[in-house]
Order: sequence, then structure tokens, then C-alpha cells
Amino acid sequence: MRVVVPFDAVRPKTRLGDVLDAEERRAFARSMLADVLATVREAGHEPTVLSNERVEVDAPLTVDERPLTPAVDGVLSASSGPVGIVMADLALATPRAVRRLCGGPGDVVVAPGRGGGTNALVVRHSDFRVDYHGASYLDHLRIARDLGATVREIDSARLGTDVDERADLAELLVHGDGESRDWLVDAGFELDVTDGRVGVERTD
Amino acid sequence: MRVVVPFDAVRPKTRLGDVLDAEERRAFARSMLADVLATVREAGHEPTVLSNERVEVDAPLTVDERPLTPAVDGVLSASSGPVGIVMADLALATPRAVRRLCGGPGDVVVAPGRGGGTNALVVRHSDFRVDYHGASYLDHLRIARDLGATVREIDSARLGTDVDERADLAELLVHGDGESRDWLVDAGFELDVTDGRVGVERTD
Repeated sequence: MRVVVPFDAVRPKTRLGDVLDAEERRAFARSMLADVLATVREAGHEPTVLSNERVEVDAPLTVDERPLTPAVDGVLSASSGPVGIVMADLALATPRAVRRLCGGPGDVVVAPGRGGGTNALVVRHSDFRVDYHGASYLDHLRIARDLGATVREIDSARLGTDVDERADLAELLVHGDGESRDWLVDAGFELDVTDGRVGVERTD
Repeated sequence: MRVVVPFDAVRPKTRLGDVLDAEERRAFARSMLADVLATVREAGHEPTVLSNERVEVDAPLTVDERPLTPAVDGVLSASSGPVGIVMADLALATPRAVRRLCGGPGDVVVAPGRGGGTNALVVRHSDFRVDYHGASYLDHLRIARDLGATVREIDSARLGTDVDERADLAELLVHGDGESRDWLVDAGFELDVTDGRVGVERTD
């Protein structure tokens, strides 16, 4: 299956601004993108990158300067056949989780993220369009229902964890095994267990 | 399978102190416990409650005043045969997720929670003991490895989401369908979508 990986090359990972400067955020975002592309390939699917700016990347690239929702809708309206949409910050995703996403039935398959988000989709209904603003998971269920499309939900912590904020870095240190985890370790991040709760600290 | 549900009846859900008073926290914790017990039963397993204080509950009850780790170890050392351990605040758990946990192979089956925690376990190795302090997920992997026990990890957002903090209430409002979600709605909580991010607000 063709799996589109939307990537914000212009201002990536702004919510990590308290722990990474702008150049670091770009490098870290690129390492997560590389992990996602590798995972999609290992799952047996064909990743393409949908970026808002030209980037050097080891995959077919579409540049679309519009916001996420119209850019993804542009892909969907130009596609025939199923399309996967997997966010570029799902650095914990495993090939197994991607196979669960892409392998089963459903006109629309959705892997929700925390906070009502939509971290991954498979779209097999030609009229389905996305709406990533706000509680997009609920919106996507509603859009599918209005179309009479069948929906399957993927219950996956690895697809459900988008790496957006400082606390998410702990998830990557605990569960990750790719380039982006290595990047964090090289940048001096390590787990910090205080009062029985786990966060991250940066030591250099 | 016997599934032990540890429950803190003495000081439940202290990290929700910014949005719920002590009596509300007790009531909300009890409603989540009821949801977990119902889900375990619906999955075809037999829940028992392990509480640090006597509680009225619709399941066999063991009272053990010790902290979580020695109390659970007490259950494990007194058990023959497999034991599941499912936390009482997994209000998003579904029967399907519990069947994935309890139904497959593995001397030790672990469903990690956010922040390196361990939200659910199945123990089929007679020498395995728990350590819930700190990054317990990593500790449990190490303990299993030291025993030569086989480990299976469950990739589930529903088992991975323990309801501890204000932000977790949004997860329950978005994805829940049981008594505890009803309790939250009755208490005046609703989703709050501001700047495209989803939280909760309380309106009465």
C-alpha cells in the first residue's frame, strides 16, 4: 500500500522548544521521519513524503505548501486505491503495528493519538476527506459515518504516541530503537526517575 | 484466568487533586474500578480486587495494607497457575484488549503504560516478582530476562492509558463508554478544544 508520511519541514516540533533549539528540532524531526520511513518499508509498504518544503529524503517526495488538511486531501482526491497516512513523528511505530494498520479490513482505519488526535489512517473510500484540526479522531469517525463507510480502530500505543512534547521523549528513550532514539541519546538526554515518575533530563 | 485488580482505597488518584476533591476522587476511582471489573468479566476472566482497605465491591476481595509491590508479590507467591494483574484505573480497557493480554503465549506478558510504567501483566512463571517503583516496565523486562522467562509485550493504547492526571480525563471523555465516563460527564467535565489541542473543562 502507498503510505503518505506528512512532514512539517518549515517549523517542525515547536512544542519541543523548551528542550531543543530550532536547528536541533529540525535534525530530530528528520531522524524521526527516517525511522517512520524505515518502519513502513519493513512492514512491506511504500512510503512517500508529503512535505511543505523541499527536503532531501530517501523516498518519493511531494511538496505542498498548504496546511496539513488540504495537503492530505489533495493526495486523497488524486489517488485511486487505498492510501495510508502515517505521521512523521510516530518514532515508536513498529512494522507489526503498521501491518495491523494496513493489513485488515475497513473503508477507514484509524489509529487515534493522545488528546483526540489522529496519528494514522488508512483510507479506502474515495469520498473520505480529513480534518486534522481539534479532536480529529472524533471528526474522522463522524465523516466516515456520514459517508456510510466502515471504520476499524487500531488500539496501539506505538501508533498512538506522537512525539510532540518533553514527556514524549521519555517514551522514545524507553521504547524506541531507531535513529531518533540514538539522536536523543547523542544529544545528552537520559531517563530521569524522580519520586517514582519517569521523565527526561539533559546532561550536556 | 484469575485477574487481580490492585486498588488504592486509602488515597486514590491524588494527582487528580487539582480538579477533584478527596470525596470525588474516591467516587471516580470506584467507578473506574467497576469499569475494569466489568471489562475483565466480559473478556471471559475472573477478576478479584486487591485493596489496601476494606471496600464494598462486587468481586472477591483481598485486603493487604502493604504497598503495591509487596502486596502483588504476596498474591504471586500464593498462586499456582497464571495470574493477570490489571490496574484499577485502566478505564479505557476493552474486553478485546484484555483478551489480547490474557489469551496469547508468554511466561510474562506486559502492557506498558506511559512514563515507563506497567499497566497490566500476566505472570505464568512461578519465580517472577514485581517492582512497580520507577520505570517498572524496564525493571520487569530485566527481572523476566534474569529468570530466563519468555516475554510478550502488548501494544495497546487502551491498556497503556492509566487515568492519573487531568489530561488523561480527556482520553476518557473521547474513548470511554463506561460508568467512569458517565461519572465525569455528570460531574460537569467536557472536552475543551482550544488552539487545536484537546483538554477538559468543568462547567458546574
